[in-house]
Amino acid sequence: MEYLFSKSTEALSSSVVREILKLTQGSRVLSLAGGLPAADSFPIAEMREAFDGAFHLGATALQYGLTDGYIPLRQWIAERMKQKHIHVGVDNMLVTTGSQQAVDLLSRVYLDEGDVVLVENPTYLAAIQLFHFRGIQVIPVEADEDGMDLDDLAKKIAQYKPKMAYVIPTFANPTGKVWSMERRLGLLRQCKENNILILEDDPYGEIQFDGEAPYRSIFSLDEHPTNCCVVYTSTFSKIVAPGLRTGWALGDERVIQMMVKAKQAVDLQSSTIDQIALHQLLANFDLESHIAKIRASYKERMEWMNELLLRQQWEGFSWQKPRGGMFLWATLPEHVVSADLLKIAVEEGVAFVPGEAFYAADTKTNNMRLNYTLLNHEDTELAISRLGKALERYSKVTV
Amino acid sequence: MEYLFSKSTEALSSSVVREILKLTQGSRVLSLAGGLPAADSFPIAEMREAFDGAFHLGATALQYGLTDGYIPLRQWIAERMKQKHIHVGVDNMLVTTGSQQAVDLLSRVYLDEGDVVLVENPTYLAAIQLFHFRGIQVIPVEADEDGMDLDDLAKKIAQYKPKMAYVIPTFANPTGKVWSMERRLGLLRQCKENNILILEDDPYGEIQFDGEAPYRSIFSLDEHPTNCCVVYTSTFSKIVAPGLRTGWALGDERVIQMMVKAKQAVDLQSSTIDQIALHQLLANFDLESHIAKIRASYKERMEWMNELLLRQQWEGFSWQKPRGGMFLWATLPEHVVSADLLKIAVEEGVAFVPGEAFYAADTKTNNMRLNYTLLNHEDTELAISRLGKALERYSKVTV
Repeated sequence: MEYLFSKSTEALSSSVVREILKLTQGSRVLSLAGGLPAADSFPIAEMREAFDGAFHLGATALQYGLTDGYIPLRQWIAERMKQKHIHVGVDNMLVTTGSQQAVDLLSRVYLDEGDVVLVENPTYLAAIQLFHFRGIQVIPVEADEDGMDLDDLAKKIAQYKPKMAYVIPTFANPTGKVWSMERRLGLLRQCKENNILILEDDPYGEIQFDGEAPYRSIFSLDEHPTNCCVVYTSTFSKIVAPGLRTGWALGDERVIQMMVKAKQAVDLQSSTIDQIALHQLLANFDLESHIAKIRASYKERMEWMNELLLRQQWEGFSWQKPRGGMFLWATLPEHVVSADLLKIAVEEGVAFVPGEAFYAADTKTNNMRLNYTLLNHEDTELAISRLGKALERYSKVTV
Repeated sequence: MEYLFSKSTEALSSSVVREILKLTQGSRVLSLAGGLPAADSFPIAEMREAFDGAFHLGATALQYGLTDGYIPLRQWIAERMKQKHIHVGVDNMLVTTGSQQAVDLLSRVYLDEGDVVLVENPTYLAAIQLFHFRGIQVIPVEADEDGMDLDDLAKKIAQYKPKMAYVIPTFANPTGKVWSMERRLGLLRQCKENNILILEDDPYGEIQFDGEAPYRSIFSLDEHPTNCCVVYTSTFSKIVAPGLRTGWALGDERVIQMMVKAKQAVDLQSSTIDQIALHQLLANFDLESHIAKIRASYKERMEWMNELLLRQQWEGFSWQKPRGGMFLWATLPEHVVSADLLKIAVEEGVAFVPGEAFYAADTKTNNMRLNYTLLNHEDTELAISRLGKALERYSKVTV
């Protein structure tokens, strides 16, 4: 038997980075690479009770459910979204297996092979990978600290006639960046004028460090939510726990219902019991206090990493202190190839994600993404010190 | 905003059947339509304990896990598959969100738009829908009581050069049919000779009524499991509970690992906690006795429906008594359009799935699929009597 894989699998070819990171699994390597929440942030006891509570519904908790998701959970989400100036009903909403699935489903109902998606450069690597897997052209738009450059956006729209723009405007992955209001409104206006659908991915919006009002989602800035040019997706992965694989997408009913039909063909529905248990938790849980605790804890970890990096004074090593989210994006001297550095770093016992993985084009090779949420203070200190040793060895090798 | 859905969504256009069945939700309509297991077959108390046990693993139960699935669960499945003459390791196996997702993932890594899949006619409607959604040509092969007609198979292979064959050889959906050994071996031989991958879907194999040894899977008949031309998929939906959305696929490591990469892009992984809880259950549970109970209960329900139908003596109404699975496939007189009958049936308070939904081509309109696992004896009796009234009204309308 000679296996004849589909053309699209070419986009799935193993990356060097993934292969290196695989080596770190279960080893003594301290990982700043993943996007894992701190294990001590999970409400384990409450979640255990919530699962127990879910069984009070009897067989319903284990039976097939609706493809679009458990209605009380969707009602709870709709209610909470009001705090964020988003006013939608349950028919505007679909529960997904993490927000990752929302990206897949929307791409499948909205994009054909060869269609163009605009993204920030750099952006979430799994989104790039998914779009490439679907044969979609991913075109990067220039960006600075405030978000996409609106002039370059106009240029790319004129040049490529995109059908969609994929953005993470609040505490972006990998850069941690927050878009200014001007850029949010500018993207919205240009997309409306050119009939471009915006996919707003907001997994990190709740992890805000400054205690101010949350940043307005682009979805909430659209004046016509019933004929909206934004589909918004978020997840419980970062504010409750990722192992429940529960995210959601919301938008115009026609778009959402098309995603529901796609989901019916793809996996019928996400876990019934997880959705019911999550609803049980949320109904009896002070989520706001819980999120406040996560924010405080992650802020402390971020400040600690920031402090450790400041102490190092590595030459040509710079970063913007994150205002939220889970990642610190660092720039190394131009000659450093961070994927090569990673090999040495893994030998020293520390891992990170080289920046090149996050570029759809015009790849820069001298960045790294550091996660500060997973490790405790002691391990973070050790990890940064190992990173220092790796940098030292790297500079000797390449001199 | 004018929404410009992808070309593939044309395959998702709402069917008349689905619209009618939607009307039955939450109403007094008795449903013989779905493929739902009996609610009283779920091991609720044991599952509740298993979830509780999963939390003994602490944060691991709620954290991100491996894309290919929880290793102890895969080990358990590998061990159990030995009973079925299937000998594979955990790297030959992927946990999926129901076996439905296995069909999607394999189609995505193995089939390009325009590629051909051979299927039995009729076959599982959601598989047809998924293939069409992916722009794949679905070519039906003639079949009789023993499975695919091997001459027609040879003809269709020569004519269409298919890349894949999708089959449910044991207690097929919708027909309940069991393929003979000759047909299983014949399909395997022809597919090997022509480098065609077989996707063997086996959700119902455990639900066997005759107490004999299980039918051999086509996968287990392949002499070269490491370069196998079969990918086998099954699920816990029918032997434990569907709400856990846990299925698996197994096959050659190269194929499975490609599916793992696709899954990473599509939804990262299925629920961590559901996989751990399921493993907890299976480690402490007499699954064989449980399956024996399900078999006995479903057999009794099938016999009851069979008995009720025999009593009716509806003119021109025929069926083959199922040897396993969840469905009874009935043929009505040729002039009856079962989709029209459904409208009257719903008015009378009973629903079924019209046969036409299961045909990829050469559609016959005078069949119906009746599920006998969901309703208890009393409701089944009422449902069949309502169906009788509908048939009577239908014959008056069409005379």
